[in-house]
Amino acid sequence: MKDNAGFPIATVIGGGQLARMMQPAAIELGVNLRLLSVSIDESAARVIPDTHIGHHTDADAVRSAADGASVVTFDHEHVPNELLAQLQTGDIAVHPGPHALLYAQDKLAMRRKLTDIGVPCPRWREVTDLDNAREVLTEFGGHAVFKTARGGYDGKGVAVVHHSDDLAKISDWFDGDGPEILAEELVDFTRELAALVARSPSGQAAAWPIVQTVQTAGVCDEVIAPAPHLSEDTAARATQIALTIVKELDVTGVCAVELFETSDGAVVVNELAMRPHNSGHWTQDGALTSQFEQHLRAVLDLPLGDTTARAPWVVMVNVLGSSYPDLYRSYLHVMAHDPGVKIHMYGKEVRAGRKLGHVTVTGDDLDDVRSRARHAADFIMGRIDE
Amino acid sequence: MKDNAGFPIATVIGGGQLARMMQPAAIELGVNLRLLSVSIDESAARVIPDTHIGHHTDADAVRSAADGASVVTFDHEHVPNELLAQLQTGDIAVHPGPHALLYAQDKLAMRRKLTDIGVPCPRWREVTDLDNAREVLTEFGGHAVFKTARGGYDGKGVAVVHHSDDLAKISDWFDGDGPEILAEELVDFTRELAALVARSPSGQAAAWPIVQTVQTAGVCDEVIAPAPHLSEDTAARATQIALTIVKELDVTGVCAVELFETSDGAVVVNELAMRPHNSGHWTQDGALTSQFEQHLRAVLDLPLGDTTARAPWVVMVNVLGSSYPDLYRSYLHVMAHDPGVKIHMYGKEVRAGRKLGHVTVTGDDLDDVRSRARHAADFIMGRIDE
Repeated sequence: MKDNAGFPIATVIGGGQLARMMQPAAIELGVNLRLLSVSIDESAARVIPDTHIGHHTDADAVRSAADGASVVTFDHEHVPNELLAQLQTGDIAVHPGPHALLYAQDKLAMRRKLTDIGVPCPRWREVTDLDNAREVLTEFGGHAVFKTARGGYDGKGVAVVHHSDDLAKISDWFDGDGPEILAEELVDFTRELAALVARSPSGQAAAWPIVQTVQTAGVCDEVIAPAPHLSEDTAARATQIALTIVKELDVTGVCAVELFETSDGAVVVNELAMRPHNSGHWTQDGALTSQFEQHLRAVLDLPLGDTTARAPWVVMVNVLGSSYPDLYRSYLHVMAHDPGVKIHMYGKEVRAGRKLGHVTVTGDDLDDVRSRARHAADFIMGRIDE
Repeated sequence: MKDNAGFPIATVIGGGQLARMMQPAAIELGVNLRLLSVSIDESAARVIPDTHIGHHTDADAVRSAADGASVVTFDHEHVPNELLAQLQTGDIAVHPGPHALLYAQDKLAMRRKLTDIGVPCPRWREVTDLDNAREVLTEFGGHAVFKTARGGYDGKGVAVVHHSDDLAKISDWFDGDGPEILAEELVDFTRELAALVARSPSGQAAAWPIVQTVQTAGVCDEVIAPAPHLSEDTAARATQIALTIVKELDVTGVCAVELFETSDGAVVVNELAMRPHNSGHWTQDGALTSQFEQHLRAVLDLPLGDTTARAPWVVMVNVLGSSYPDLYRSYLHVMAHDPGVKIHMYGKEVRAGRKLGHVTVTGDDLDDVRSRARHAADFIMGRIDE
């Protein structure tokens, strides 16, 4: 269905900051965003007039939010797949589709599929019980990362194990009707990279430059675009891996492929996200087409935009919690200190470790750009005194 | 008043595309926009959840929309000044204030004030009746532009006269209790320029590069940033004029100063606008800080952002009406034809000559950038066949 100006409605399920950041892009494109949010106080619900309140696992709520929209897309991967499959049969486009989303929801399914299509992964095994976990740990040389196949996020549902005694911390994962578990070798990586691509239902695909991501305690902290000193060969391989994945898994919309780079320049896939992703926030200020605009263009099957970077270096640093109860004062101080910093706030109340916003700096000198972005984020977080 | 995250509410009066384009900036800044719009179908009302419906001349509607906001600002200049003066006494910040807005509302007051502070203007006279108009026409060498002091916009309330017989077309302006009228000499300009600046209540000011504007039938059609082949001297003088105006008139927020450049490199002031302006739309994609972000920063008395251009050349072309009833198809075609064009749509139904959106192109080669922007806008308007 279209509005009076002939422009479509796109329904986004989930009211977090990713949906919020689709709204500026939708406003400029003239596309009408509709939101399904669990509460009117969510980050995105504060900025999208056409907000439906309801839970993403409630079939009626999802159906009502989808009614009349040209497409349903997502802020997160938590909508039950059966529900999306039903929606599709009712002639509503769902992008990414449930058959693709499965691989962002289920790490075992993802590892099986990527292995099947020849995409390099860490060594991995499905783990059935604690004895089996012990065997796999031995097989992987005494070091492994255990993951629940579903439900893990930002360090949750993930356990790094360096000794069989440490398996105690995951023993309850095998209780009763627990989750499916997989083990992966601990990759001896030199750094983490991310390949961000978009693909439309028509099959058009576009890739942004490969970035370096810096994780702290399992949470994305900093992103450097492009990844410094990356060989052309590795960049091409990383891009090709992401393009292969979105083609073979029939992913539509933006897809982020998180990668480990090893000392010999090889890359293996760590995780997949089928939506705009923290590793792509730099594109808002740093690329001709942001990941949020591109996601909307892709899921609406509009032609994709130019992904060229706007500056030689772009650095994004997350604002993760703050020692200030209210960020307005420290944010004001950052504006005064560095008029070139782009500050993005998510409209959330401060809680420890919570993703509250991010800052982006562009420029010609990487050291300068990194230190300015770091200073701005640290200042907002209260890690630097005035 | 602030939200739970400690961020202020800014009320914008008027639901047009300028208020609409403040919303992406507000979302990124984490600032809460509230809108007073005459209808829920207005361009901005479609994208701002906290929209009050009411008329900008209704004191109760304006007061209710202002209640609890940190500042009241504007999409247009049509709020009665007495009403704003009353608001201010009630301890609500109004930016720009009514004492400054007067000069954007009343062209006679503006000419008197600019002449008073030594800013170069075309020769001008207040005109009291038709006989007086004839005298002034003679004084100006037989050519003059007559303007109503108030209410003119995009070519309305403006009459260019080349012969005393043509005065017939403005004779009804002098009927009964008609508007105040001024006459200005017809400046023999080589082109039109615009100086865009912002100023905060604390007195901080920032200027973007001087741009060239191309008007067609009195309506802005194209903007080129920076103005090609502009001498450093003229650029500096134009910038200084704008900075002098905002200081001496105590303008807060973004202010656009439209200028005529003459063949000897002199500049004289044509018009003033005390809000984001069509001549500054290029800053959304073309400058580190857009005029919409800067306006919010300025009226909230936040430190101002860096106005540096993001590319050597930036060209914006307006979409003024369309021969298509629905722009979605032609817009899709432009995206396919040129993935680097930034398209901005205002969510309006098509009407002849109506400002429906604009396109922006950035790049290193001016001819290429201009022709791409022109082609994209012409295509959306249906002036080029597929």
